[in-house]
Amino acid sequence: MGHRLADASAPARLAGPGEGIGPDELALAARNHGLPLETLRHDLTPPGLHYVLTHYDIPYVPDGTAWRLAVDGRVRRPLSLAPADLAAFPRVTTRVTLECAGNGRALLEPRPVSQPWLVEAVGTAEWTGVPLRVLLAEASVRAEGVEVVFTGADHGVERGVEQDYQRALPMEVAAREDPEVLVAYAMNGAPMPPQHGYPLRLIVPGWYGMAHVKWLRGITVVDEPFTGFQQTAAYRLRRRPEDPGEPVTRIAPRALLVPPGFPDFMSRSRVLRPGPVTLEGRAWSGCAPVTRVDVSTDAGATWREADLEPGDGHRWAWRRWRHPWTAVPGEHVLSARATDADGRTQPLRQPWNRGGFANNLVQRVPVLCLDE
Amino acid sequence: MGHRLADASAPARLAGPGEGIGPDELALAARNHGLPLETLRHDLTPPGLHYVLTHYDIPYVPDGTAWRLAVDGRVRRPLSLAPADLAAFPRVTTRVTLECAGNGRALLEPRPVSQPWLVEAVGTAEWTGVPLRVLLAEASVRAEGVEVVFTGADHGVERGVEQDYQRALPMEVAAREDPEVLVAYAMNGAPMPPQHGYPLRLIVPGWYGMAHVKWLRGITVVDEPFTGFQQTAAYRLRRRPEDPGEPVTRIAPRALLVPPGFPDFMSRSRVLRPGPVTLEGRAWSGCAPVTRVDVSTDAGATWREADLEPGDGHRWAWRRWRHPWTAVPGEHVLSARATDADGRTQPLRQPWNRGGFANNLVQRVPVLCLDE
Repeated sequence: MGHRLADASAPARLAGPGEGIGPDELALAARNHGLPLETLRHDLTPPGLHYVLTHYDIPYVPDGTAWRLAVDGRVRRPLSLAPADLAAFPRVTTRVTLECAGNGRALLEPRPVSQPWLVEAVGTAEWTGVPLRVLLAEASVRAEGVEVVFTGADHGVERGVEQDYQRALPMEVAAREDPEVLVAYAMNGAPMPPQHGYPLRLIVPGWYGMAHVKWLRGITVVDEPFTGFQQTAAYRLRRRPEDPGEPVTRIAPRALLVPPGFPDFMSRSRVLRPGPVTLEGRAWSGCAPVTRVDVSTDAGATWREADLEPGDGHRWAWRRWRHPWTAVPGEHVLSARATDADGRTQPLRQPWNRGGFANNLVQRVPVLCLDE
Repeated sequence: MGHRLADASAPARLAGPGEGIGPDELALAARNHGLPLETLRHDLTPPGLHYVLTHYDIPYVPDGTAWRLAVDGRVRRPLSLAPADLAAFPRVTTRVTLECAGNGRALLEPRPVSQPWLVEAVGTAEWTGVPLRVLLAEASVRAEGVEVVFTGADHGVERGVEQDYQRALPMEVAAREDPEVLVAYAMNGAPMPPQHGYPLRLIVPGWYGMAHVKWLRGITVVDEPFTGFQQTAAYRLRRRPEDPGEPVTRIAPRALLVPPGFPDFMSRSRVLRPGPVTLEGRAWSGCAPVTRVDVSTDAGATWREADLEPGDGHRWAWRRWRHPWTAVPGEHVLSARATDADGRTQPLRQPWNRGGFANNLVQRVPVLCLDE
């Protein structure tokens, strides 16, 4: 019997009714992690709390590794840069809220079998690097360049396809000035941790995480649309397996609550005592600025507008919101709902697709308020 | 109908045959995380990759918080210290491998329903702080002090019991010189991240993680054995619910492999090509130094001794081991087995208890070696 690459991969599938999380999903959940929701209180997510999703292994890049970033393809002057060479280019720092395209997947019915995120696959960091448009100008893109392909050093197999992780952006996104795509080398003013892409990663403000290629070693200008696995097989919005599907791109609006009170260790139920409590959380959108957050304390029956903090100049980062509430004994379901300047808002019923992508269903936080 | 604290908690239970991971276990897995096994290559676990397990919420301690650590109880001179006051005491840095007492739980049959760890709940860091024995001497412990109770700021409910997280150590462990228990304020030379206990935590070299109380605000000398929830209800080795059970204390020997080759994204199967490969990993024990690691490449049928790196003076940290192997096409199961100076080794059949604690069953890493 032959031993072939295809033997490592199983077909994509949906979980059956009531099917619990399986060993493959658990193995992903044990290594990847979300943002513990109480830490939404921090403007900038502290080290180690930002969500992490890696498709394959985290590359081992000890000090002294001879890392090169190639800028090539349809350019007049191909570049080969060491990470230290980037210091010679302009330095930009941008605060960005990053969210995994699969956030919310494990709450879908039926559940696509993959990384089983609840709602916490998000984080906000300040990324420092060189604007991609500067590197593209330095390499001098030829007129026929229509897309830019980014290649990471992470290597694996997915649905039988062996690959280095690769994603592309249209030229007008890659070379745009606002938002500016970065080739980042620092996170929150410190060297990038291994799991976030050390030594170099792409940052694409406003886009879901799959676009922010980590362990970046190649930037290739191409003259036709890229058809790699992560562009055309994965990260598409499909109802049926045979649909070509729309691509996953920008982050849909979402608000999350800091769950009030305290948790039960095992059930994760929230408990609080009667009296006034300030509900708070964050809201973001990769499409247009968040302009409104509404809060419900009765499982979505009624909504009241929350106090949204004024914009602080960080267009691509989440905004804080607050809402006063008086807890009374009983069981309650709390929710928050973000709306952006273009009128996009969060659905109250799940926006289902086979990959479980770009699902911004409103969060539900059940709480138990004790008797006096 | 009343709304009582007990309503938030369900009784402890075992999963049924074939029962998948449930929503409560998934909520724990989404916020807590293990060490991605490929990062066992790092001597010191990089920021954000060290395993994290928090029972309740991570306390929010922004700059300027008036944090106090009380040292009281059966002492002659009670202390109340700000974190900055600790700089006046001797400063010690110790490299420590920390492992969660529940590591390996999700692989048990039947599976205790709790944080569903596979094998990656481990990490190694350098902790800097003040020896606990110095603080106890400063406070002048009275002769009747038999145990020291440590109180964290993390608050929640567990099996119906509302609590701040608390654990105790016998006086002879708390005041010992080797290993020295630390009240730590720095991790790897940097301020402690929130999820690891900022601003202060206990470090008890050689003990499972439950002893290393985070967000430490109280050190209380008591004159009788502590009977708090985490000491007498949780963290006991029980076969049946009614057993009093032995307490969980020191870390049992364990070796882990860096899985060779590359992964399939979804199945997490490992794939490699034929030829020589150096198997490597780490081994540790909280009981006595690891003196031997054996490796099997045939699912435990035969074992060969691995090359164990010489001790480098870090007694309480893991040691690296390596073993040459030539992969041939086919399916293989790789394992490593640590043995310590007292002859303790890892079982080949699971050491089951109801809490899923201190389970050091040998790891099994299935790999697929492709045809040439």
